[in-house]
Amino acid sequence: MFESAELAHSIDKKTYKAAVPGLRAALQDAQYELKENGKIPVIVLVSGQDGAGKGETINILYEWMDPRFISTLAFSEPSDEERDRPPIWRYWRALPPKGRVGIFAGSWYSDPIRQRLQNEISLHALDARIDQINRFEAMLVNEGALILKFWFHLTKDGQRARLKALEKDPRTAWRVTKWNWDRLKTYDELQDVAGHILRMTNTAWAPWIVVEGTDDRFRSLSVGKILLDAMKHRLASPESSDAPVAPPLPRNIDGKDVLTELTLDRVLSKSAFETQLAKWQGRLAELVRDPRFKERSLVCVFEGSDAAGKGGAIRRMIAAMDARQYQIVPVAAPTEEERAQPYLWRFWRHIPRKGRVAMFDRSWYGRVLVERVEGFCSEADWLRAYSEINDFEHDLTDSGAIVVKFWLQISADEQLRRFKERQKIEVKQFKITDEDWRNREKWDDYHRAVCDMVDRTSTGEAPWTLVEANNKDFARVKVLRTVCQRLSAALESVPANNKKRAAVKKKPEPS
Amino acid sequence: MFESAELAHSIDKKTYKAAVPGLRAALQDAQYELKENGKIPVIVLVSGQDGAGKGETINILYEWMDPRFISTLAFSEPSDEERDRPPIWRYWRALPPKGRVGIFAGSWYSDPIRQRLQNEISLHALDARIDQINRFEAMLVNEGALILKFWFHLTKDGQRARLKALEKDPRTAWRVTKWNWDRLKTYDELQDVAGHILRMTNTAWAPWIVVEGTDDRFRSLSVGKILLDAMKHRLASPESSDAPVAPPLPRNIDGKDVLTELTLDRVLSKSAFETQLAKWQGRLAELVRDPRFKERSLVCVFEGSDAAGKGGAIRRMIAAMDARQYQIVPVAAPTEEERAQPYLWRFWRHIPRKGRVAMFDRSWYGRVLVERVEGFCSEADWLRAYSEINDFEHDLTDSGAIVVKFWLQISADEQLRRFKERQKIEVKQFKITDEDWRNREKWDDYHRAVCDMVDRTSTGEAPWTLVEANNKDFARVKVLRTVCQRLSAALESVPANNKKRAAVKKKPEPS
Repeated sequence: MFESAELAHSIDKKTYKAAVPGLRAALQDAQYELKENGKIPVIVLVSGQDGAGKGETINILYEWMDPRFISTLAFSEPSDEERDRPPIWRYWRALPPKGRVGIFAGSWYSDPIRQRLQNEISLHALDARIDQINRFEAMLVNEGALILKFWFHLTKDGQRARLKALEKDPRTAWRVTKWNWDRLKTYDELQDVAGHILRMTNTAWAPWIVVEGTDDRFRSLSVGKILLDAMKHRLASPESSDAPVAPPLPRNIDGKDVLTELTLDRVLSKSAFETQLAKWQGRLAELVRDPRFKERSLVCVFEGSDAAGKGGAIRRMIAAMDARQYQIVPVAAPTEEERAQPYLWRFWRHIPRKGRVAMFDRSWYGRVLVERVEGFCSEADWLRAYSEINDFEHDLTDSGAIVVKFWLQISADEQLRRFKERQKIEVKQFKITDEDWRNREKWDDYHRAVCDMVDRTSTGEAPWTLVEANNKDFARVKVLRTVCQRLSAALESVPANNKKRAAVKKKPEPS
Repeated sequence: MFESAELAHSIDKKTYKAAVPGLRAALQDAQYELKENGKIPVIVLVSGQDGAGKGETINILYEWMDPRFISTLAFSEPSDEERDRPPIWRYWRALPPKGRVGIFAGSWYSDPIRQRLQNEISLHALDARIDQINRFEAMLVNEGALILKFWFHLTKDGQRARLKALEKDPRTAWRVTKWNWDRLKTYDELQDVAGHILRMTNTAWAPWIVVEGTDDRFRSLSVGKILLDAMKHRLASPESSDAPVAPPLPRNIDGKDVLTELTLDRVLSKSAFETQLAKWQGRLAELVRDPRFKERSLVCVFEGSDAAGKGGAIRRMIAAMDARQYQIVPVAAPTEEERAQPYLWRFWRHIPRKGRVAMFDRSWYGRVLVERVEGFCSEADWLRAYSEINDFEHDLTDSGAIVVKFWLQISADEQLRRFKERQKIEVKQFKITDEDWRNREKWDDYHRAVCDMVDRTSTGEAPWTLVEANNKDFARVKVLRTVCQRLSAALESVPANNKKRAAVKKKPEPS
């Protein structure tokens, strides 16, 4: 991976001076066009050997471009708010919105590289991380991002010379610490690990760009031109994604599916309901106050057709909990700031800390339900969403979150009855709109979308629970019982990754 | 303050049962109207004696209202991200947007009450905090918020009885800890401190509502009715604020003002510029890397008419710093999420952590500049902004931030020259729009607004520096030199509050 960056590249002063003004003007033009266009976030990763010019490169980009539309994100030791959530959360919250450039000084590569260097993770575990990274970057690119991953390279001798030069100059001496000299000792190991990671993450959608770091002018001019060309190319590319799409998802030829096989009218007597409700609410109250829950979190997803009883089920849950411990997240149309980010961003921002509960009244599954049925996104978009969602939920469960997902199913007749009832009751009139009646007409489309959703996103870590909901009492008890059983099972088991991670997290991270 | 809440109020079961359904429906209606209206955030503080029903009240509100449009904010020990910023920051980030209800379980009152109880602050210091709180709440109310401050009261005997009852019931026993019993011992002290604080913060715009906590039905019904009436009253009130406004701000009768007295054409030779630039950039590089800066932060404000050179001054500053340490915040039109909050909210969200730098390219002064001149807000709004801004900057400096504010002044002729020049240079064309030409027509209005702004917001802690900017080199050096001198002076002195606060912060806070 590094061969072309060991050729002693250099650019003479005259060539450099002649090239800069034009490049600078073009970069700024591209920035304004990007801002105008408003559809592309530019993500620039700056990584590589120490002394290879990472900091200098960032500075030169600020000098050449309009600094108002650039942010630099530094990731030193995670804050406690970050440590209480999945490791990728801190990168999600730092993503630049569409139209802006975000420079990552340190990135989702820093941790795996460091952990592997310090022998904290096996090659096998590393490859699992690499796979996660590739999928994460693919998602970003599919959501419109332009990703440029720079690796600045130096030979071992080059690095030594460079550190010495920095140390000699009083203006830069502060930048060289014992840590840097220690890193020189592990130069070969870093090259090995980085070489492996770069090779495995050198994807078609986000390839690595290795730049020789020895000559300042060569490095700066290279980065400037590469960034410019990438932005121009992306701005000139036609918008419509020609992503290959598989033939339509097949259906079972006998007409049976997970929804048709439900017995929607399961009943529960009033007295049985009272007993069960008290039992499971009491149990839930205990579980969320269990000391072991302090290291976990609970993420509940409520999906279901209109009037299926999502709100009622949530109410029965919160009755057992302390309001300071949970948040209800009603999912409606995304805001302006949310539209400027990948579609999962607006859910990531509500992911609870350890010891807390989030209940999503509708969720990220909107992508494969309403957005699919109403055509709000392309077929390629919702098709890829299945695996993106699985990855997202894997990030959650992997860090100790318990993800419980409910689909509340009612019959078309029951829905009609509830709609009519709502129109009669003053306080519930708000709940019934023209849109609800329109959605009803697409009953079959939704039915199909739900079956596909369940088939493709019910995983071992985050299974769907289908709730027969014609009888509200039955549904509410089933929801409560399921939450308790999942919580209880999870608290009995400590996730494999957790212990190791807790030990690792405290150490400072190279930026 | 507590007399009316020691009368053994109670509501019988029958009255309660008869009242609840109507109240519930009315509360939900009010919520939907509030959401529809979209202009009023409802802030409910829930505070009072332990065992007086704080938690129960929150639960009953969730039961009666639509929980999707309520958030409960709990404030236990601040996170490190919160500790690195002014204490009020955590409340700012938790404010409910317009149309929603935010319940504060713990609030900006918790800290002063606890600190006074533990004798950590003097009565004098407490009164200063009280004054800050009153001003903060006044600002919220002026920005459209409806604030309901509940204090749940119990007699000492009542509290003892209540704790015993809670302890006896296995469902609630977990809620009573040694801490609660300890609090009973300090009942009288708490009553004293709370009595003083409640009296001093019992303002016309956000009065306290003391509710007797003994009888559950009385308490719940009281809170429900009070909240309902307050929401209905506020929704029915005419929107136009009839805030009294003073006569127009006077001008000096001799035509002299802080801007006319500037010598705009101060010159600096090219060689003097090079020397000075290198000198002050070097100094800035040292200062932001000074270990003492790790406990401070730097907030720079750049204001000035179009083409005055704000961007150029910022560029010269960042050349001396590490991109990982600073953020440039370009201030444009607020986003949808920002419009749903008080106007200072969108600046609070960019306030840097300790050890970091934020440079605002335009700022919160837009309120008294463009918004005043263009009539985007009422006269009462921008008139009150002067003191709100001073309070805001006091919050910053009080917690160790160094606030440096620049007004870059150019002459009308110089601006015209620069506009024309920009139109010629390709890369700068974006910088000149029709709006710039329109703004030029209001030169005199802006001139006046700037003079008023400087007079009213140049404080000892956060003074304005007027920069003669017809000569760009002179202006850039003056900006750099001023930042260095302010930083240097600040690092020599440790803010009075800092030591005490550092000692206090680590203790857990009652929620």
